[in-house]
Amino acid sequence: MRNSMRSQVDPFIVMDVMEAARRAEAAGRSIIHMEVGQPGTGAPKGAMQALATRMMEEPLGYTVSLGLPELRARIARLYGEWYGVDLDPGRVIVTSGSSAGFLLAFTALFDSGDRVGVGAPGYPSYRQILRALGLTAVDLPTAPENRYQPVPQDFVGLDLAGLMVASPGNPTGTMLDRAAMGALIEAAAGQGTSFISDEIYHGLDYDTRAISALELSNDVYVINSFSKYFSMTGWRVGWMVVPEDQVRVVERIAQNMFICAPHASQLVALAAMDCTDELDENLAVYRCNHALMLEGLPKAGFTEIAPPDGAFYVYADVSALTNDSRAFAAEILDKAGVAVTPGLDFDPVRGHQTLRFSYARATSDIIEGLERLKRFMDARG
Amino acid sequence: MRNSMRSQVDPFIVMDVMEAARRAEAAGRSIIHMEVGQPGTGAPKGAMQALATRMMEEPLGYTVSLGLPELRARIARLYGEWYGVDLDPGRVIVTSGSSAGFLLAFTALFDSGDRVGVGAPGYPSYRQILRALGLTAVDLPTAPENRYQPVPQDFVGLDLAGLMVASPGNPTGTMLDRAAMGALIEAAAGQGTSFISDEIYHGLDYDTRAISALELSNDVYVINSFSKYFSMTGWRVGWMVVPEDQVRVVERIAQNMFICAPHASQLVALAAMDCTDELDENLAVYRCNHALMLEGLPKAGFTEIAPPDGAFYVYADVSALTNDSRAFAAEILDKAGVAVTPGLDFDPVRGHQTLRFSYARATSDIIEGLERLKRFMDARG
Repeated sequence: MRNSMRSQVDPFIVMDVMEAARRAEAAGRSIIHMEVGQPGTGAPKGAMQALATRMMEEPLGYTVSLGLPELRARIARLYGEWYGVDLDPGRVIVTSGSSAGFLLAFTALFDSGDRVGVGAPGYPSYRQILRALGLTAVDLPTAPENRYQPVPQDFVGLDLAGLMVASPGNPTGTMLDRAAMGALIEAAAGQGTSFISDEIYHGLDYDTRAISALELSNDVYVINSFSKYFSMTGWRVGWMVVPEDQVRVVERIAQNMFICAPHASQLVALAAMDCTDELDENLAVYRCNHALMLEGLPKAGFTEIAPPDGAFYVYADVSALTNDSRAFAAEILDKAGVAVTPGLDFDPVRGHQTLRFSYARATSDIIEGLERLKRFMDARG
Repeated sequence: MRNSMRSQVDPFIVMDVMEAARRAEAAGRSIIHMEVGQPGTGAPKGAMQALATRMMEEPLGYTVSLGLPELRARIARLYGEWYGVDLDPGRVIVTSGSSAGFLLAFTALFDSGDRVGVGAPGYPSYRQILRALGLTAVDLPTAPENRYQPVPQDFVGLDLAGLMVASPGNPTGTMLDRAAMGALIEAAAGQGTSFISDEIYHGLDYDTRAISALELSNDVYVINSFSKYFSMTGWRVGWMVVPEDQVRVVERIAQNMFICAPHASQLVALAAMDCTDELDENLAVYRCNHALMLEGLPKAGFTEIAPPDGAFYVYADVSALTNDSRAFAAEILDKAGVAVTPGLDFDPVRGHQTLRFSYARATSDIIEGLERLKRFMDARG
């Protein structure tokens, strides 16, 4: 059978790392996983208990496409709690993870061939989903001095239909502060570029609070998820906030493309939002890991790192050490027993000189991983 | 914010019916729901029990994109049990409902502007998802004498990149027999048209067994779901079977567009496949309802009905009664207290003369609904 052009998305290079790590473990080696992009923890226990009760009481059929009204209301309330933003629950759309949010946003806003700017380095699926939809991703190379985040001069005049930003970003963990976010929103609005803010790592910040685009404008798409702070990756549930006049448009697309987000996952998400104790415990682990990484990576010799404001990643420039991040990651796995991600998935052009280290797992793993990295680098000389 | 052309999908007319029914119920009226497209039952109890245990034992993180290996193997085994087909589990891809299956299939196979044939009447989301992806849906008007299913002369020479069929179909419940399915597959192959078979109502057939496209060819995409026979609508889990050389292509798209199907739903699905007793009970209800509808609808005056081989729908030609199915459905809701779906969602051209009756709910509802319809039609004269 003949395949489409749009189906030719790039493979994830991290998959090769994960497969090599799996083989090493199968052969009896101990591997520390600093390549993974998901929490080691599950959904809050109390939230799963809520589901266990409910699913025996009623058939969990389709919900309405926009999501359970009580969940939409609770999410709206979160914007008051986290940002002091008074949000109409009618603007909240529950999605099948942020993945569905991207599909819905890109479909609602862009037509075949439209150009959408994405920061490089950045989450690889932005580029791949755009391509799969017949749209054109325009990589915006970002600079370390701008915290690896785009600035207006990176895209003004590029004829972009849309601009996709992420703060904290993946793979860097860097954030846009209020002024930087505001400048991007203003520049985008000034040239008719739709602004989409990926805020899925909100709640995982360590020194300053992440700014939501909704603090600055109502004329933006915001995409979020229960996967990270709420530790619910496998449940595939997230949300979007869209301008009031966009709700009907997105609703109709969602009715057809998804019908609804998983009902059970919506119930778990609703209960998870009040499991504050368990979420605080998770956050305390990340906070500890974050501090350990900031101390340990430079000691091991990874000194050129982006300021990791949030999420659970550190992005390191390793150009002084290698010109082939893929081979270097393979060497680290082989000799140090630590799996890390070469930067090529996030930045096809410059990623041969970068690595991403994840600290999403248990603190004991982080300590052991940092020790292994130091020994490896010391021996490498 | 400016919207794309592709975002302008049609609203579902059935939503207006459902909203009117909701208002009537809120005002204290009794309404029988023959408009709904989902089982009234939930997932098998034993399957939810399996999840209740597992989710307390391990964090349900992402699964691999293709789905849990044990679920893929169990689905492959189903093809032996149901069709006598020996299927390689490596060709099975677990999806976030059949909705995700459509997105994946259309993306893997078609480029912007490609023409894809869909039978009319047919499931409205085929058309809308194609449009949302920048593709062109080509309605193929089907004939009652062909059981409202396409035949080769409906599309040969139409320059179609793809052909989407459904057996049993929605809204008609009619099936393609082996010869009819074979003729379509052969004609499609003969002109380089990719063949996609929607088999989500398999398991819900009453006189003859539904034929899978996989009984006739390996060079097809088959889409299925746990929503209907397995009664798991709200869990959003389904599967595809694709040719061997298509697995990698679909996997890469799925990694980016969905990451994975909901982990919890995959566990419920796996356990549900062995909850045969409860599924047989559900099927017995549909079988009874099916017989009641075939007897009761003609008695009420709905005599022109498509042969309802499977699913839980009856599609009636009401051209002798009205030229405005929307107004007629509103009249039936108002005067008979029965919610039914006007055909316009399924066939924008000819649906003003058709209605869809669903018998997915409890048998007592079907009996009451048929009595109400008869009284209404007798009074209407």
